[in-house]
Amino acid sequence: MSKKLKGIGASEGIAVAKALVLAEEHINIQDTKISDTKAEITKLENAIAVSVEELDHLRQTTEVKLGAEKAAIFEAHKEIASDPAVKDEYIAMINDDQSNAEFAVQTISNKYYQMFAEMDDPYFKERCADIKDVASRIIKHLMGIKIIDLSTIKEEVIIVAEDLTPSQTAQLDKKFVKGFATNIGGRTSHAAIMARSLEIPAVLGLKTITQDVKDGEVFALDGTNGIVELDLDQTTIDSYLAEAQKFAAFKEELKKFKNQVSKTKDGQTKLIEANIGSPADIDGVLESGAEGIGLFRSEFLYMDNDHFPTEEEQFVAYKKVVEAMNKQLVVIRTLDIGGDKKLSYYEFPHEMNPFLGYRAIRFTLDKKEVFRDQIRALLRASAFGELGIMFPMIATVDEFKDAKAFVEQCKKELDSENIKYDKNVQIGMMVEIPAAAVNADKFAKHADFFSIGTNDLVQYSMAADRMSEKVAYLYQPTNPSLLRLIKMTIDGGHTKKRWVGMCGEMAGDVQAIPLLIGLGLDAFSMSASSVLRARQLMSKIDLKDAQDLANQALELETNEEVLALVDAFLAKIDH
Amino acid sequence: MSKKLKGIGASEGIAVAKALVLAEEHINIQDTKISDTKAEITKLENAIAVSVEELDHLRQTTEVKLGAEKAAIFEAHKEIASDPAVKDEYIAMINDDQSNAEFAVQTISNKYYQMFAEMDDPYFKERCADIKDVASRIIKHLMGIKIIDLSTIKEEVIIVAEDLTPSQTAQLDKKFVKGFATNIGGRTSHAAIMARSLEIPAVLGLKTITQDVKDGEVFALDGTNGIVELDLDQTTIDSYLAEAQKFAAFKEELKKFKNQVSKTKDGQTKLIEANIGSPADIDGVLESGAEGIGLFRSEFLYMDNDHFPTEEEQFVAYKKVVEAMNKQLVVIRTLDIGGDKKLSYYEFPHEMNPFLGYRAIRFTLDKKEVFRDQIRALLRASAFGELGIMFPMIATVDEFKDAKAFVEQCKKELDSENIKYDKNVQIGMMVEIPAAAVNADKFAKHADFFSIGTNDLVQYSMAADRMSEKVAYLYQPTNPSLLRLIKMTIDGGHTKKRWVGMCGEMAGDVQAIPLLIGLGLDAFSMSASSVLRARQLMSKIDLKDAQDLANQALELETNEEVLALVDAFLAKIDH
Repeated sequence: MSKKLKGIGASEGIAVAKALVLAEEHINIQDTKISDTKAEITKLENAIAVSVEELDHLRQTTEVKLGAEKAAIFEAHKEIASDPAVKDEYIAMINDDQSNAEFAVQTISNKYYQMFAEMDDPYFKERCADIKDVASRIIKHLMGIKIIDLSTIKEEVIIVAEDLTPSQTAQLDKKFVKGFATNIGGRTSHAAIMARSLEIPAVLGLKTITQDVKDGEVFALDGTNGIVELDLDQTTIDSYLAEAQKFAAFKEELKKFKNQVSKTKDGQTKLIEANIGSPADIDGVLESGAEGIGLFRSEFLYMDNDHFPTEEEQFVAYKKVVEAMNKQLVVIRTLDIGGDKKLSYYEFPHEMNPFLGYRAIRFTLDKKEVFRDQIRALLRASAFGELGIMFPMIATVDEFKDAKAFVEQCKKELDSENIKYDKNVQIGMMVEIPAAAVNADKFAKHADFFSIGTNDLVQYSMAADRMSEKVAYLYQPTNPSLLRLIKMTIDGGHTKKRWVGMCGEMAGDVQAIPLLIGLGLDAFSMSASSVLRARQLMSKIDLKDAQDLANQALELETNEEVLALVDAFLAKIDH
Repeated sequence: MSKKLKGIGASEGIAVAKALVLAEEHINIQDTKISDTKAEITKLENAIAVSVEELDHLRQTTEVKLGAEKAAIFEAHKEIASDPAVKDEYIAMINDDQSNAEFAVQTISNKYYQMFAEMDDPYFKERCADIKDVASRIIKHLMGIKIIDLSTIKEEVIIVAEDLTPSQTAQLDKKFVKGFATNIGGRTSHAAIMARSLEIPAVLGLKTITQDVKDGEVFALDGTNGIVELDLDQTTIDSYLAEAQKFAAFKEELKKFKNQVSKTKDGQTKLIEANIGSPADIDGVLESGAEGIGLFRSEFLYMDNDHFPTEEEQFVAYKKVVEAMNKQLVVIRTLDIGGDKKLSYYEFPHEMNPFLGYRAIRFTLDKKEVFRDQIRALLRASAFGELGIMFPMIATVDEFKDAKAFVEQCKKELDSENIKYDKNVQIGMMVEIPAAAVNADKFAKHADFFSIGTNDLVQYSMAADRMSEKVAYLYQPTNPSLLRLIKMTIDGGHTKKRWVGMCGEMAGDVQAIPLLIGLGLDAFSMSASSVLRARQLMSKIDLKDAQDLANQALELETNEEVLALVDAFLAKIDH
């Protein structure tokens, strides 16, 4: 009898291959007080230097073997490893506390890790994993522990591990690595994000998979359904291989959608765009077939920094993205800081409920000197392509008008300085606060476009912090009440002929897409890896059918009822 | 030239009288280690005994001089002063830390004070002041400082002080105390709440009034507009006196409304009810002319306790209120704990955003043993009058159905035990979460009534914690977006012929009442002191005019525009 284990399906697809079990490393670091701090600092400096050199080498070899995009992570790691401010913190701790270098690196890194770990945004979750990964590299060098190089794998395997680090995943060669299964992690963990972007099937959170499967044992992994199956007979293997072939054919079909426009079965065109967190993500977007960038989170420029980025620094970053997208619209969201996102160089006031506090547009309207640098940089970049400026966390029409008036003021400044910008730059807003959704028709008089942020909209509409485990069950983006708020937003925008997009997770969700088409959404912005799937699904859906579906859903009482309705709809269309 | 000072108008009315400036007390308590802990404990026990005796005496004399209602506070203070558990904590600190008694009392009291201080609810804000007041009394006895007795005032004065304590305000005789002016405090501070309930004009938050006005100096105080005027000439005095007379005539007119039903100018009847926090508030409600209790917060039974109150303890409290209200409807809200309201005997999970967390119905649906005791107590009390059960923080139809099913289950239990209850007890819900407001028509199939909680509804709709100073400007209950949510709630309820009330602060607000009448609200529940004012205002308003007003307001863009529209409306009607 075969044995089935249930985990979290983090990346679609089927794999049958030999297990490559990575031994778990239990590194035990103790705070033994050292006496020769000078020697300890030299040891630390050597470990950092070796790490940086190694990362540089990895960047080069990865670039040759797997391409520039995958190599980029090692550039980022090099920057983290060689950050002089962090190094100073390590040294201070060795000097002040007589800590050993390993303990200092672990303690300081943990501090930064914690800072990023509490954030909701997948981009920052990745940074979190990067910090851990780099610290672990330095610590291993300090302790003389060998670092495994996964790029040397030369046979088809499924990797089985406690967890996978960013540098490990970057080295994975899809030709040989057919899947991965881990003990820990969920749908938003670093390993999950990487698996989806590499299109390697993955099942995470299996708890004991490193013990359950033996190294070299052939087993099956179904990333679509979150299942791992061991002790296989030939019939089972064959049926998995048949499923894998079907999935491969489906992926092949998706490729046909790469250079097509996004449209429904009956020919209604829509836009399917990508969300990005940094200019480094552009290559992935260009490869994905996305028709623009629906959300460029500008926070990275602020959080990956030790000062508020200057106008010039921002201009360079925005220009790079806008030019790369070659006349496709790039919507850049102005600074959404505060809440769970903090800055190392600015102290936010302590608040009891930071998600209901001083953040995003509330912060920038209050700190005009910070806002000015960003708006001027955005306007200047607008001369180099198609750029949209988007304000986050707008609750009242007053706020939108104030922010827009500030843009007009910056335009006048640029005029008087004879600096170019796009006079028709679009100025829009996130709809992520219930008051804005309900009042959308009023905002439409002033805003050029709306983009619905579902994570926050659900959070506020349900009064439920999705980071709080106890109330996570209230994260119900397809609850009829949310569908109504989305409908009010879309209808409100359309009364003034504004386009209405969505840049929250919901936009790329298979169960949500038919509803959103039916509700009249114009633009769907999602992670680059979801673009083709969404476009293919859209091509199977008739607008009229989707409208009927949405109207029925709006009349239901519960989220469960809506999901059942959508599942029946999806089962009927051949997708 | 006279001199005008601007403060916070905390209680309406005009006063002109001599200043009675209460000297500020700066008590400096140091943590000097004592050696004879036994003697220190005896000293403490004496101070507590003297305080309790004094409070008992105050209760008796206040009852004779000013009536039972005002005397009740000293009963509460006596209970606080003689709480054996708290006394044990004082003694433990003296024994363990060799602290002096003053320091122990201050430290332990501060701990309880902090626990209550972070709460939004005015009822608990009052408890906070009580704790401080009692601690200060004990400390003064320990240090031999004289306690001022305000009941000895026998000439007309305006009291000028840093702040006023509950025991001070309880002793105030309206015949002689014409107003009060303080350095600190705002509209929700204890002094403000007391001033309104005593109907004494008050201006608070004047910062330096204890220095600005000399003891014995005649000055004017305008509690309606939050102004104090010094250095008066006779003309100014006369104009203030004329204003005061006008206000007195208005108050006199209000009295005529006491035993009338609440109705609009054109005879549409509505209900004007009172909010209460404890059975002790009933006398005030009965005096106010309220037509029932629209919100009885049941939290006090849980927070003023060292254990989850038993079914029996709760039954006694609910029965008392229901019987006292003599067939008028009493709506009791089930436990709304969590968020900012904690319990000393139950540890809530730490959450990053407690207002978006595990609280109210989310807690009770999860802790059925706690919920059962309350539901059974409520059902049993329903046999003794008109009782409505109301669930707080309902976000989804599932939650309401679950909670209602639980009530049905408890009914069956009572049936099998042959215990009486009202088979037709109304089961309704707070509408304070945007998702519920938007979906009101769906909820109306299941709920017997709605009560709109504006404080939370505004907070979640605007994604702005009203306790956070930085975003307090977003507390805009008359913003058109909020009016739409209120309209959706009322219309949703009316589709199924449910009555829709409001129990948030907005229901008693003069600027909001015309809008709420126009939107079709059926029941207005407010603090007892606002009832007659609301009923008088309602009697001046024609339903059709209010509907026109509401329709116009719904089409506006900003809160400011709505307030200007309402002010113009109020200026036209003679109220």
